[in-house]
Amino acid sequence: MKKKYIMAPGPTEVPPEVLAEAAKPVMHHRTPQFRKILTEVLDNMKYVIGTARNVYIMASSGTGAMEAAMANVVSAGDKVIVGTIGAFGDRWETMAKAYGASVVKVAPEWGYALSIAEVKKALDANPDAAAIFVQLNETSTGVYNDIEAIGKLTAGHKALLVVDGISGIGAQPYYMDKWGVDVTVIGSQKGLMIPPGLAYVSCSEKAWKVIEANKTPKFYFDLKRYEKAMTKEKMPDTPWTSAVSLIMQQAVALRLIKEETNEKVWERHAKLSKSVREGIKALGLELFAKENPAVVLTSIVAPQGIDTKILVKKIRDDYGISMAGGQGKMEGLIFRVGTLGYTDRFDPIMGVAAVEMALKEMGANIEIGKGVKRTMEVLMEEYK
Amino acid sequence: MKKKYIMAPGPTEVPPEVLAEAAKPVMHHRTPQFRKILTEVLDNMKYVIGTARNVYIMASSGTGAMEAAMANVVSAGDKVIVGTIGAFGDRWETMAKAYGASVVKVAPEWGYALSIAEVKKALDANPDAAAIFVQLNETSTGVYNDIEAIGKLTAGHKALLVVDGISGIGAQPYYMDKWGVDVTVIGSQKGLMIPPGLAYVSCSEKAWKVIEANKTPKFYFDLKRYEKAMTKEKMPDTPWTSAVSLIMQQAVALRLIKEETNEKVWERHAKLSKSVREGIKALGLELFAKENPAVVLTSIVAPQGIDTKILVKKIRDDYGISMAGGQGKMEGLIFRVGTLGYTDRFDPIMGVAAVEMALKEMGANIEIGKGVKRTMEVLMEEYK
Repeated sequence: MKKKYIMAPGPTEVPPEVLAEAAKPVMHHRTPQFRKILTEVLDNMKYVIGTARNVYIMASSGTGAMEAAMANVVSAGDKVIVGTIGAFGDRWETMAKAYGASVVKVAPEWGYALSIAEVKKALDANPDAAAIFVQLNETSTGVYNDIEAIGKLTAGHKALLVVDGISGIGAQPYYMDKWGVDVTVIGSQKGLMIPPGLAYVSCSEKAWKVIEANKTPKFYFDLKRYEKAMTKEKMPDTPWTSAVSLIMQQAVALRLIKEETNEKVWERHAKLSKSVREGIKALGLELFAKENPAVVLTSIVAPQGIDTKILVKKIRDDYGISMAGGQGKMEGLIFRVGTLGYTDRFDPIMGVAAVEMALKEMGANIEIGKGVKRTMEVLMEEYK
Repeated sequence: MKKKYIMAPGPTEVPPEVLAEAAKPVMHHRTPQFRKILTEVLDNMKYVIGTARNVYIMASSGTGAMEAAMANVVSAGDKVIVGTIGAFGDRWETMAKAYGASVVKVAPEWGYALSIAEVKKALDANPDAAAIFVQLNETSTGVYNDIEAIGKLTAGHKALLVVDGISGIGAQPYYMDKWGVDVTVIGSQKGLMIPPGLAYVSCSEKAWKVIEANKTPKFYFDLKRYEKAMTKEKMPDTPWTSAVSLIMQQAVALRLIKEETNEKVWERHAKLSKSVREGIKALGLELFAKENPAVVLTSIVAPQGIDTKILVKKIRDDYGISMAGGQGKMEGLIFRVGTLGYTDRFDPIMGVAAVEMALKEMGANIEIGKGVKRTMEVLMEEYK
């Protein structure tokens, strides 16, 4: 018998009451009974994103919602700015190029956040840029960006601010309308606490003007079709068949978030991730994030001689905990411990303990219990 | 207390053991443990589709898989043939136009199947057509097409044969390779017996040559990315985050299909739908399908003075059974009774009984029990 845990930056563990919801009989999607649930989900998503604008829900992974943002605001030949601080930022670039856009890149060294001064420089130098694409939280490096500051720069600029909030929203502060974000993209399997398969998009009025005029070929991700479905027979609907069981699960998960409140959810993630970071530092390991460390995961540099592919495999296959290795150019060099979604104070303790035990077994020079002790102290302090 | 049933042509009812599977803890998708399940699903999908080619699985509704077919084989300026016999065929046309293709239409009156002679004429007159898009089963009218015959026509033609098998596959005979189909598109919430949210695509070698050269802007539905992921570390993977809980459910549902065998599944659908058709005719109502009546649903013309929107609402809200009304230009004029997926011999009896009771209550001139009696007789004959 081996208990299984997920401590990855998505998919994350799903609360039991949310799992149980999926075992209920399937509902037909074109019924007032189901559309009532859909309405509740969309309303609560507005609360989580911090917007008064409509939220569109699609059956797809987060990457699909990224493409919805791209295909609806960018036309072939457009110039766009991509602010990338890791593998998911690089995906914006690949996608923009697939759609025939020319890309101006702001790309600090991995481990750093976007420099607001560099973003300003790029926006000033490119007044014709159609949009700037960024991440709220970059999962591959464990670094978040200051979206509020970027929103202040795009407010007076032609460029739309498109934010991939897939791993950050539902875990760290986010105010779409207040910060002036034009397009927000979200996935279901992170802070939203359900299995993967749903994604969300919301657009500002400024974005909507661009979207209405956009002629890029698209169909499934055409946001105009989603908007049109919102008011069908005076109740929200989706243009294509809704992923009904996932939406039923999302309704339950969003009730949990709303009951806890956004602010308490954000605070919890901040506390738990801090306890992991402090524990890891006490152990003598180096954090990969040089600034703005993520609250949804902690990225850690491997000690001398440790291949994190083997470390992650050991923790998964021997101990039953799914963590994450490094992505792209950091493969084998870093590993990442998630504290995302359905997580509480004993999760960091388990995570740091597993890291200690595995590293020790792999021959690293660490003192068992030292990291966990510090994690516990931080948790006791934070939860006082 | 009201028991709830789905007798719609999708989403359909999901077997209890498949529902229960979704209540299991979420797995991380980038693990050998999950990819073993994915491998099983993809292998069993080959069996269901009748292909030796790879099958790609995507988190999307069936429409997304239709777009994957379109965006990967069609380039702006291409000429395509659309064989449409209803609302979903018309969707091929809308989609082709969204991608800048010019469309040659073969469109018999609703209620009829594609005439093979007309399809031949269109192919002969358009040797430059890049593809022909058709439905295996047209859900909006309840009529199926003779794909085998169309496959014989495209075998010697430049055009790829693209088949929307969303509502038909897993319920009626389909042999992708043997019939010479080039692209097959499937959804999860019909014959595949899981909730909506997954879709499948498979492509012939002939199609793959076109796909490899295709430059239409795309990302999420780019089949080359799906193909590339199939061989990552020698095990199938998906390019984007897998909808893990739906795939876990699909594994269980496909085991049920494989155990029953394709042939027995097809036979069951044929028997059940026949019993509904015969019962409805005995009741004095008219079937909407003038030829090739669907096995996954029965489309029925409303008796004089009956608005099927009200009929379907009554059966749903008063009796608890979700059936379907008419789509597009048949709204209010026909209604559709599903016998799709997880269905057995008492489902047709319930369906015909509900239709009789509702029509009687709405004032139609029918004799209670007459249709049900005939349905029972047919079932006893078929199951002898």
